[in-house]
Amino acid sequence: MSDLQVGIIMGSKSDLPVMKEAAAVLKELGIEPEVTVVSAHRTPHRMVEYAESARSRGIKVIIAGAGGAAHLPGMVASLTTLPVIGVPVKSSNSIDGWDSVLSILQMPGGIPVATVALNGAKNAGILAAEIIGAFDEGVADRLAQFKEELREKVMNSIEDVEKGWKS
Amino acid sequence: MSDLQVGIIMGSKSDLPVMKEAAAVLKELGIEPEVTVVSAHRTPHRMVEYAESARSRGIKVIIAGAGGAAHLPGMVASLTTLPVIGVPVKSSNSIDGWDSVLSILQMPGGIPVATVALNGAKNAGILAAEIIGAFDEGVADRLAQFKEELREKVMNSIEDVEKGWKS
Amino acid sequence: MSDLQVGIIMGSKSDLPVMKEAAAVLKELGIEPEVTVVSAHRTPHRMVEYAESARSRGIKVIIAGAGGAAHLPGMVASLTTLPVIGVPVKSSNSIDGWDSVLSILQMPGGIPVATVALNGAKNAGILAAEIIGAFDEGVADRLAQFKEELREKVMNSIEDVEKGWKS
Amino acid sequence: MSDLQVGIIMGSKSDLPVMKEAAAVLKELGIEPEVTVVSAHRTPHRMVEYAESARSRGIKVIIAGAGGAAHLPGMVASLTTLPVIGVPVKSSNSIDGWDSVLSILQMPGGIPVATVALNGAKNAGILAAEIIGAFDEGVADRLAQFKEELREKVMNSIEDVEKGWKS
Amino acid sequence: MSDLQVGIIMGSKSDLPVMKEAAAVLKELGIEPEVTVVSAHRTPHRMVEYAESARSRGIKVIIAGAGGAAHLPGMVASLTTLPVIGVPVKSSNSIDGWDSVLSILQMPGGIPVATVALNGAKNAGILAAEIIGAFDEGVADRLAQFKEELREKVMNSIEDVEKGWKS
Amino acid sequence: MSDLQVGIIMGSKSDLPVMKEAAAVLKELGIEPEVTVVSAHRTPHRMVEYAESARSRGIKVIIAGAGGAAHLPGMVASLTTLPVIGVPVKSSNSIDGWDSVLSILQMPGGIPVATVALNGAKNAGILAAEIIGAFDEGVADRLAQFKEELREKVMNSIEDVEKGWKS
Amino acid sequence: MSDLQVGIIMGSKSDLPVMKEAAAVLKELGIEPEVTVVSAHRTPHRMVEYAESARSRGIKVIIAGAGGAAHLPGMVASLTTLPVIGVPVKSSNSIDGWDSVLSILQMPGGIPVATVALNGAKNAGILAAEIIGAFDEGVADRLAQFKEELREKVMNSIEDVEKGWKS
Amino acid sequence: MSDLQVGIIMGSKSDLPVMKEAAAVLKELGIEPEVTVVSAHRTPHRMVEYAESARSRGIKVIIAGAGGAAHLPGMVASLTTLPVIGVPVKSSNSIDGWDSVLSILQMPGGIPVATVALNGAKNAGILAAEIIGAFDEGVADRLAQFKEELREKVMNSIEDVEKGWKS
Repeated sequence: MSDLQVGIIMGSKSDLPVMKEAAAVLKELGIEPEVTVVSAHRTPHRMVEYAESARSRGIKVIIAGAGGAAHLPGMVASLTTLPVIGVPVKSSNSIDGWDSVLSILQMPGGIPVATVALNGAKNAGILAAEIIGAFDEGVADRLAQFKEELREKVMNSIEDVEKGWKS
Repeated sequence: MSDLQVGIIMGSKSDLPVMKEAAAVLKELGIEPEVTVVSAHRTPHRMVEYAESARSRGIKVIIAGAGGAAHLPGMVASLTTLPVIGVPVKSSNSIDGWDSVLSILQMPGGIPVATVALNGAKNAGILAAEIIGAFDEGVADRLAQFKEELREKVMNSIEDVEKGWKS
Repeated sequence: MSDLQVGIIMGSKSDLPVMKEAAAVLKELGIEPEVTVVSAHRTPHRMVEYAESARSRGIKVIIAGAGGAAHLPGMVASLTTLPVIGVPVKSSNSIDGWDSVLSILQMPGGIPVATVALNGAKNAGILAAEIIGAFDEGVADRLAQFKEELREKVMNSIEDVEKGWKS
Repeated sequence: MSDLQVGIIMGSKSDLPVMKEAAAVLKELGIEPEVTVVSAHRTPHRMVEYAESARSRGIKVIIAGAGGAAHLPGMVASLTTLPVIGVPVKSSNSIDGWDSVLSILQMPGGIPVATVALNGAKNAGILAAEIIGAFDEGVADRLAQFKEELREKVMNSIEDVEKGWKS
Repeated sequence: MSDLQVGIIMGSKSDLPVMKEAAAVLKELGIEPEVTVVSAHRTPHRMVEYAESARSRGIKVIIAGAGGAAHLPGMVASLTTLPVIGVPVKSSNSIDGWDSVLSILQMPGGIPVATVALNGAKNAGILAAEIIGAFDEGVADRLAQFKEELREKVMNSIEDVEKGWKS
Repeated sequence: MSDLQVGIIMGSKSDLPVMKEAAAVLKELGIEPEVTVVSAHRTPHRMVEYAESARSRGIKVIIAGAGGAAHLPGMVASLTTLPVIGVPVKSSNSIDGWDSVLSILQMPGGIPVATVALNGAKNAGILAAEIIGAFDEGVADRLAQFKEELREKVMNSIEDVEKGWKS
Repeated sequence: MSDLQVGIIMGSKSDLPVMKEAAAVLKELGIEPEVTVVSAHRTPHRMVEYAESARSRGIKVIIAGAGGAAHLPGMVASLTTLPVIGVPVKSSNSIDGWDSVLSILQMPGGIPVATVALNGAKNAGILAAEIIGAFDEGVADRLAQFKEELREKVMNSIEDVEKGWKS
Repeated sequence: MSDLQVGIIMGSKSDLPVMKEAAAVLKELGIEPEVTVVSAHRTPHRMVEYAESARSRGIKVIIAGAGGAAHLPGMVASLTTLPVIGVPVKSSNSIDGWDSVLSILQMPGGIPVATVALNGAKNAGILAAEIIGAFDEGVADRLAQFKEELREKVMNSIEDVEKGWKS
């Protein structure tokens, strides 16, 4: 079994600026992701193959990002029993992101997609780490440290805010 | 080649009350449809097989209806060069129909779906007939007659409306 | 009968930057389109004449684009038995495109418009080709080739995506 | 010139329950309306004829109601120089009324439609009376009386409200 | 009685870039407007006075523009029997214009506002002219000429569009 | 100075079923409200008088509820320096409540309205009590007790929920 | 460590009819859930305690459902490193569900919530099982069987659909 | 008791450009605010402590601003009996501001948040002053003066507007 426990896929190379945040935060949390491009509409057979082989390749969680009528996360979810995290991407052809959000979120009964915020690829990476961390103490510890750093960042901004409103 | 030039598919038996209007109007226009159930999320392999074999079975137009995160029309469109008409169904799990509409309409460049109004299965049937009628004079004549009947129905309601507002 | 099987019309010259994508993809697929401007609100008689004469001039499919309260596609559909493809244009006076989408998509029973995505003129051209290709093997072959090129473009971007997230 | 200064039209007999409120309030204000059915999509030629002849028949204001992709008010406005009042009807095929509202309200520059609230046919009638009343003292007096009655109705409900919250 | 038959008011000087289009088109149509600033929320007494005196000063139509929670058109309508045209302005504090549109359009029964498109001040001016033109042949003739010029502008763009898609 | 520190007004008697919840919760918290009907559009002068006299009559907080294009809360806020709480009412003429919400919430700079949830009259009453309670220990104590009762109600439902899912 | 690997919480007993579907499907998949009521707004301290102790009590995944301004899922996520699944509930005080969806989905960077469809508690249960099943072959096998049953249910409806449209 | 009667908090330093307008207008009205950063999701314990201690520190009103799934105002409201004013911030991760607005406005029964317009921090400050001014004549006088200045600013723009439309 490979060390790559998280597969990150996206519908188009143009989604990479958003989706690479998922990979970056996973790496920061000590999890090396597998990243590639899989289009539901342009490479449907590649999608079927990717989704159906993911579990046997050692993948624990799949993160799938797409924009507009975004079918990739839901279709992958229909082809695997692994948890699939969907990232609605606000692509250039999107109506303010509503199409991406609704076509990922509103899955029918039986086929869930764990949807995160519009362009929320960073949160998708953290969520994947939380899933692995539920069963891996090392990852859980790094997540706890990550949360502590978020807290500290706020604490360190207190002085700026308390004085900053006067400028 | 079979006489069945139009394939009507839907994601769930629960879509039948809406989708059967497409079949009914096609029959009224002299075109016998093929009707079945194909779920993108519950029977993805059946979907691939249906879409990839449709042209060779003599189908000219596919009508696909689905609700919520409705991936069936777009996925079928990705697997065939036939024109695909999408019917957004306002299913019980839909947010006022917006999810169905946007996940069918907002297809990325390269893979069109000819989308009709929410629950507009009747119009999907007429559109399929118009497509066939562009190349078949007999169907075109029946469509012209159908349009004339729509006009007559309005004309026959004139008296009711002109007097009806007083009651 | 002319060789021009697809008529592309738009409500205003300002729609041309969007609508010319329909013409360009049709040409790429071997179909020479007829392109002109027809305004439902500023040239209603021209619209009636255009729509009613289209079939006899050999047109098989009409593509109509308009923005805001976009009445052109639906009105043309009311005046012909040909299939009409509607392109909602996000014009300067549009509320995020919702007005264009809804006033084209939500046609009443009896008068369908095959609606594509907001600004989806390219897909309108492909859909017109699919309609012709349902009855013309040469066009169908070019569509199959076009789909294969879409697939290849994704395949060729794999390396960039698999490595690109690290930069 | 006829006494009928206001023409009320609707796209379908099914709009009558909403639209007859326009006629009723006009009658209450002393203006006898002309009421009929004119469908943009089912009787486009009747629509052209109606709109182009209205002024010469003595009509001063046209009230047009329609639902879904509601093209009647805007198309009539394109064919006359008379003021056209549009009533968005929440028809059975409407998405919560948004399609009716936007396809009437969002007219392009040059062709205004005076849009009232969703199902606001009563207000359409009052607005038509206000237009006539701007040039007709008798109608203006009746409108002033009508406004006074609205005020009195509120004043008469004061006691009910001041005590009613305790029950 | 003054020659100023149309009063144009706006809630803030910042609305002037939008609202002056109403004045400009009225002038083009031979109607000199009266233009001023009246804020419902910042000068409520000025608003009451303006609205209640308008008819006696010879005003026939009031055009009122405002943004965000836009109360000016509706409040003016409550204080006069003249027709009031509302222009929803997409001001800097607006949520994509929806607040302006809905707070002008959705007036309760009894108090209509003739609403035009978002930022549609030009159409508000034309509508005011149509109202006056219903009773003034000179204005009606200028409106007919204006419509003819709209038509000609489209006709003159035909060549550009028919050839322009190739560039 | 009267004991009535909170004035509750509504645009129509039909708002009473919603608005009386504000009165009821105030009474429960030991504050007797003044309740009446004041319509911005039907009784504008009554509105001006009500708002301008409220402070001198001893009122500390005004709660105003209205539906559709809901101008009452904002107009009252423009006429007093007292805090005004706005309750968007989902009236029969409302588009799913969006018009009520936006025309109350989106006030321009300088004239705030403290907006609560759609039909949230109960919360309007509690908010008014919180405002008074910021300066009145007795009211603050009753609010603390009220919050404790909310907590207890949840605690008392634990057993039902923990077992209830099995039925 | 307890056998209870999934904690299901909801903001109010009134959410139980929706949320018990999560419990039911988990039980069907062989996972006994822990179900209770925890309100973010009415029992904030109970919420903090619940979230902070969940991991040490052996919980692997938390499912949290709430309606309106639904803060429970996001607040719980801020207090644990476990994956949190959010179920937007269309409660009686919700605006068509949009408030529930957006206040759960649109979490800021750093604190993900795995959001499922509106009222999608069943899918929340399946997603929790998929998370556990990524690390537990027994659960994975039951999920594969569950998916197979979904497929069979569609296959068994084919005959009904193929014939049903004629009735 | 400190002189600081108004506490202004925000979820992130990035909210400061919006939120400092609340502080500025309070200072202009003679009320020195306390300003700091408190994140519901990154510093939940700091939030609990802040909210629970506010009253005893002499705070009368809390203003809380946040964006996206904005839980800070509602959670603070759940932890105090003081009035809480919520400012929906249109942050970079927001869907056009709708998420911020709805997750602050749509609070459940029992826990009100006084919501102002999107990015309406200035109005939040004025509202806080109105609450204090209901019990403090000095503040009330300054508010009356502030309102008078708003009026004068409009009056001073009259000449610009009356002539400006001609340029």
